[in-house]
Amino acid sequence: MLLEETIHVHAGGRARGYPIRVRSGIRRALPQMIPAHARAHRYAVIADEAVAELYGREVADGLRREGKEAHLFTFPPGEASKSRGQWQALTDAMLEAGFGRDSAVVAVGGGVTGDLAGFVAATFMRGIPLVMVPTSLVAMIDSSVGGKVGVDVPHGKNLVGAFHPPRLVVVDPEVAVTLPRAERAQGLAEAVKHGAILDPVYLADLEDDIPCVMNGEVRATARVVVRSIEIKADIVSKDERESGLRQVLNFGHTLGHALEAASGYTVPHGSCVALGMVLEARLGERLGVTEPGTADLLARLVRLLELSLSLPPGLDPEEVLAFTRSDKKGRAGRPRYVLLAAPGRVAGKGEEWAREVPEETVLEVLREAAF
Amino acid sequence: MLLEETIHVHAGGRARGYPIRVRSGIRRALPQMIPAHARAHRYAVIADEAVAELYGREVADGLRREGKEAHLFTFPPGEASKSRGQWQALTDAMLEAGFGRDSAVVAVGGGVTGDLAGFVAATFMRGIPLVMVPTSLVAMIDSSVGGKVGVDVPHGKNLVGAFHPPRLVVVDPEVAVTLPRAERAQGLAEAVKHGAILDPVYLADLEDDIPCVMNGEVRATARVVVRSIEIKADIVSKDERESGLRQVLNFGHTLGHALEAASGYTVPHGSCVALGMVLEARLGERLGVTEPGTADLLARLVRLLELSLSLPPGLDPEEVLAFTRSDKKGRAGRPRYVLLAAPGRVAGKGEEWAREVPEETVLEVLREAAF
Repeated sequence: MLLEETIHVHAGGRARGYPIRVRSGIRRALPQMIPAHARAHRYAVIADEAVAELYGREVADGLRREGKEAHLFTFPPGEASKSRGQWQALTDAMLEAGFGRDSAVVAVGGGVTGDLAGFVAATFMRGIPLVMVPTSLVAMIDSSVGGKVGVDVPHGKNLVGAFHPPRLVVVDPEVAVTLPRAERAQGLAEAVKHGAILDPVYLADLEDDIPCVMNGEVRATARVVVRSIEIKADIVSKDERESGLRQVLNFGHTLGHALEAASGYTVPHGSCVALGMVLEARLGERLGVTEPGTADLLARLVRLLELSLSLPPGLDPEEVLAFTRSDKKGRAGRPRYVLLAAPGRVAGKGEEWAREVPEETVLEVLREAAF
Repeated sequence: MLLEETIHVHAGGRARGYPIRVRSGIRRALPQMIPAHARAHRYAVIADEAVAELYGREVADGLRREGKEAHLFTFPPGEASKSRGQWQALTDAMLEAGFGRDSAVVAVGGGVTGDLAGFVAATFMRGIPLVMVPTSLVAMIDSSVGGKVGVDVPHGKNLVGAFHPPRLVVVDPEVAVTLPRAERAQGLAEAVKHGAILDPVYLADLEDDIPCVMNGEVRATARVVVRSIEIKADIVSKDERESGLRQVLNFGHTLGHALEAASGYTVPHGSCVALGMVLEARLGERLGVTEPGTADLLARLVRLLELSLSLPPGLDPEEVLAFTRSDKKGRAGRPRYVLLAAPGRVAGKGEEWAREVPEETVLEVLREAAF
């Protein structure tokens, strides 16, 4: 991909939208792009210790070469860092280094970094500008679009956070192909979701593109990243605060989150969502909502991702069902499901994109997938 | 005051404004008003342990009598509770009690409670509706208008927080007169500020009204509360995110915050702002910006509040000056001051309401007020 694609996220009811710029090699232009979109006196480049060495230091050094004051703040890699403790430590480190309200945060990393550094930016002196530089495929495709930031707490994931749209998102597909193969599958699970809910053509194209992305081809990666961002940006632009249409992005996630929680977060998010989509498609077929054959089509794509179609070993279907009841999207403790009408088309009308379903049917579907 | 006054805060660039309703005895209508403005499945009434007994329990019980699910959450009284630790404890208590995203927070109390409970609401599952029921005069007049919420951190006050406008603010002036006399002076200091920056008539009226409010007269209290809220709501409506006009509310606060910090937060905020206004008026007079006699007029009002016109004993002017340099409103570590042109009129034009001033002049003014 030689050309640069810019996708605009429009702000639903808010003052400010933001561009997402995608181009191979674009990371080298960051030192000029960041100050142009987020003017600040000081820049806090936040990355985990691993990504800091690969890309974070490069961004901070580049900003300094442009005459900007920039400081690199790091934290230990891993989901455990997405915590209130780490949020506090980063905030205090910035204050200690003299950062004031005329500062900006540059988040360089995967989903954990975007969420954590984004929450620091959202709450630092009541909010300072944020630039996101996602480095993992899942962060590029999913978590850097939409303005959601936050941390995990003992009661569950993402239960504390804010909506804090970035000023700019910069995506360099070259960076994603440096990731391990298994990491790429995690991001592609969200790409499959985007096709499944809104774009039958994209869903069909993914059958060809998934093997190329898994093999680290930059052009296919760029193609998938751009199309997925377009779909998500379109939804988010229409519904920034998750009251209506944005619910469709939760396809596969009611069971996905329950699987993730039931596994004690030992199974990665993308793997859980991949299986969750197949199971929720089966659920829809059984309820007469989803066109027969949809679940099999999704299962074929999940196999291309080299991910499992069975519940994690040792997981009890009843236990997974219990975890659906504490889902954040539920009303009054009753879980809701986004169902497909057909591959590439979500079922629902008006503002009701998620519905309650009989628990017995959910249990049947889970039992069939038990290891 | 028999009539009810409703002041509307309009949202600058945001989707949602909110009403502030003021009436003696209005607290008894809260169980009907809260669900009408903030629909939710569960209500978290948050109050400190002292206010919980006086008013918080009454609100929670009233909501339950209306058939709503309501739960009272308390914390120890005092500024020390405005902390990340207490924010975390309240959030976790709500999660433990089964609160989900279909919940709302009702903050019943003074400034600490509004800021702390407001920050819980701002960050709980990325933000849930907030209703504010200020019970202290300073909270009624000042901190419940404007949508600022947050907590203190070791590096300073209000350094972590968010903008999270409430759905509704309910002010019952009867409640304010139950406060100790010294507490009322704290609120009136902000009222003097409102007159000083924008309303010469109000400033003149305060010479008569201050003694009545200090003596606990409900009608005078209601009059002052309504006029101050009108002024602040007008400013906030025009500039919700503090980029322009809202800066004028910082009159008296650059030196006020420095005095507060230099005293190790042993001198209350209102007392520091009262002295800060007199000193910043002297500063303005000395720089030829402020009409001569302005500082003396403000000093007369501060005397009516029974507050000190000297630096707290033992405080070194140089030390106070040093604290101005870490002011949050500074750019690049250089403090900025809002100066008056005359009583009831702020100096400045366009978007530049705050300016840098020579440090020597600040030091002269501080030295003259040294104990």
